[in-house]
Amino acid sequence: MSPIYVVGHKNPDTDSICSAIAYAYLRNKMVEAGKIKGVTEEAVPARQGDLNPETEFVLQKFGFDAPELVTDGEGKKVILVDHSEKAQSLDNIEKAEIIAIIDHHKIGDITTPNPITFINMPTGCTASIIKKLFEYCEIEIPQNIAGIMLAAILSDTVAFKSVTTTEKDKQAAEDLAKIAGIDDMMAFAMEMFKAKSDVSGKSPRDLLFRDYKDFDMSGNKVGVGQIEVVSLDLLADVKDALYEEMKKVKEEGGYHSIFLMLTDIMKEGTELLVVTDDPSIVEKAFGKKLEGRSVWLDGVMSRKKQVVPPLEKAFA
Amino acid sequence: MSPIYVVGHKNPDTDSICSAIAYAYLRNKMVEAGKIKGVTEEAVPARQGDLNPETEFVLQKFGFDAPELVTDGEGKKVILVDHSEKAQSLDNIEKAEIIAIIDHHKIGDITTPNPITFINMPTGCTASIIKKLFEYCEIEIPQNIAGIMLAAILSDTVAFKSVTTTEKDKQAAEDLAKIAGIDDMMAFAMEMFKAKSDVSGKSPRDLLFRDYKDFDMSGNKVGVGQIEVVSLDLLADVKDALYEEMKKVKEEGGYHSIFLMLTDIMKEGTELLVVTDDPSIVEKAFGKKLEGRSVWLDGVMSRKKQVVPPLEKAFA
Repeated sequence: MSPIYVVGHKNPDTDSICSAIAYAYLRNKMVEAGKIKGVTEEAVPARQGDLNPETEFVLQKFGFDAPELVTDGEGKKVILVDHSEKAQSLDNIEKAEIIAIIDHHKIGDITTPNPITFINMPTGCTASIIKKLFEYCEIEIPQNIAGIMLAAILSDTVAFKSVTTTEKDKQAAEDLAKIAGIDDMMAFAMEMFKAKSDVSGKSPRDLLFRDYKDFDMSGNKVGVGQIEVVSLDLLADVKDALYEEMKKVKEEGGYHSIFLMLTDIMKEGTELLVVTDDPSIVEKAFGKKLEGRSVWLDGVMSRKKQVVPPLEKAFA
Repeated sequence: MSPIYVVGHKNPDTDSICSAIAYAYLRNKMVEAGKIKGVTEEAVPARQGDLNPETEFVLQKFGFDAPELVTDGEGKKVILVDHSEKAQSLDNIEKAEIIAIIDHHKIGDITTPNPITFINMPTGCTASIIKKLFEYCEIEIPQNIAGIMLAAILSDTVAFKSVTTTEKDKQAAEDLAKIAGIDDMMAFAMEMFKAKSDVSGKSPRDLLFRDYKDFDMSGNKVGVGQIEVVSLDLLADVKDALYEEMKKVKEEGGYHSIFLMLTDIMKEGTELLVVTDDPSIVEKAFGKKLEGRSVWLDGVMSRKKQVVPPLEKAFA
């Protein structure tokens, strides 16, 4: 019998991977306990792409293998976690049978032909919702699953510094830390962020595209990438090469602008590297002039909430 | 401060009205209890259209007025219950701010610009989900709210006879009956269905269009209406006039076919009245020949699940 794949978004982050593993476990336990009838195939976690170094560190720490690589939904039964947008989902998602969706983003454009379970909550992390579902179903969270769920929350909320953090995330993290036996949550978060900050042995192109998205802003092709590190010092040696790479990619791709967020997790701010046809766009968007090739944006850590919206306004 | 309107689908049924009232109550209590932060305006139940006689009976029995009539979403804050499809929602729903969605249908095409609470479960009724939310939030259900929630479940599941019924609906109904002080649930259901069966004083056209939907089936214009009664005897006197009305509407509207389901709730079957350009379509769809102007379909009670799909196949 073919399984039900539990899968997060393309370009997976720690929440997409860890929530897939945690929800697959929960679903199998719910079937065992007779709480789910009907579709009772085994749930198997999956991923749409390579793990980032933070996620690799987390899975290794708690003894999990990387989930199975699945990129095409055709003919498969799937449960989606951490997304509800077609563009972020499996190829041919319209030819998959979607069994359930658990997410914490805006409501996306995925529709279904039949009623399904769809639980979306405005929390900072999918794993915080899954924590609630464990409680609601009265199913115990194993120590290692608690560990990766905690990691997902610390990652998605940048250790509660992100503007997306809610009380539910903090409460869930505290409970999970106890179950996982992690006494110092912040020390653990720092270990994760150090793993995420590992840029050694990566080419400038790999780093630029590690977490990179294309946008159409009022007819202009714009790219926005992000590299998160515990200290910008870690990027000092590669910054020149990164800037040269951005110029190359701008030419090759016919971009109006490429922005690369070098985000300092500890200082809670971003150095924005910019190559652009119109340097005035930076001041229009952020109220600060470009100084040479970059500008420091204090308190800016979220591409989704703090960089893309002002850029879209500036281009409009 | 303008309120948050809690509203069900167009052409409201008992679930859409009663779930709007129940969820508005729950939400206000959640705000009072500090469980909701941010958007804390008063929640007010609303309706998109006239009440059917069953819903009128239910509201009167438990002492509720009809919710406020609201048909346009522009500039309003809204919570949607019992639907997630634009076509079934308020006019200009894309210009409303959607705060939450609670539903039990297939996932529709409504999207949002921000993360919101969206809870969809494959139960037989929205009120069964709202019952779970009351429990989850540890908020007591008042006696009269329990009464209308029970009514919604009995209505949507046709007293648990519908193929859409789940264990969750039955359990919720039992609990709610206790709170509402209703000892004989089935006698109450029968009262509701008798109210629903009231055809006195209605014109044939009113009855035909009471619950009527248009479909495009492979390029053919097809109408399917439904009248539910506790006994087909109640329709004996109006059947001739209904049939004549169907012929008239077929001419006026340029239909290929009009089907009118006369559904006998007690016998659990439907007499399908048919006016059509091609009588063979009935045998193709249901495996039984038209006898004169109608055909008896044993066990058929759901337009959505048992009539529209075979018709669409037969027309394909």
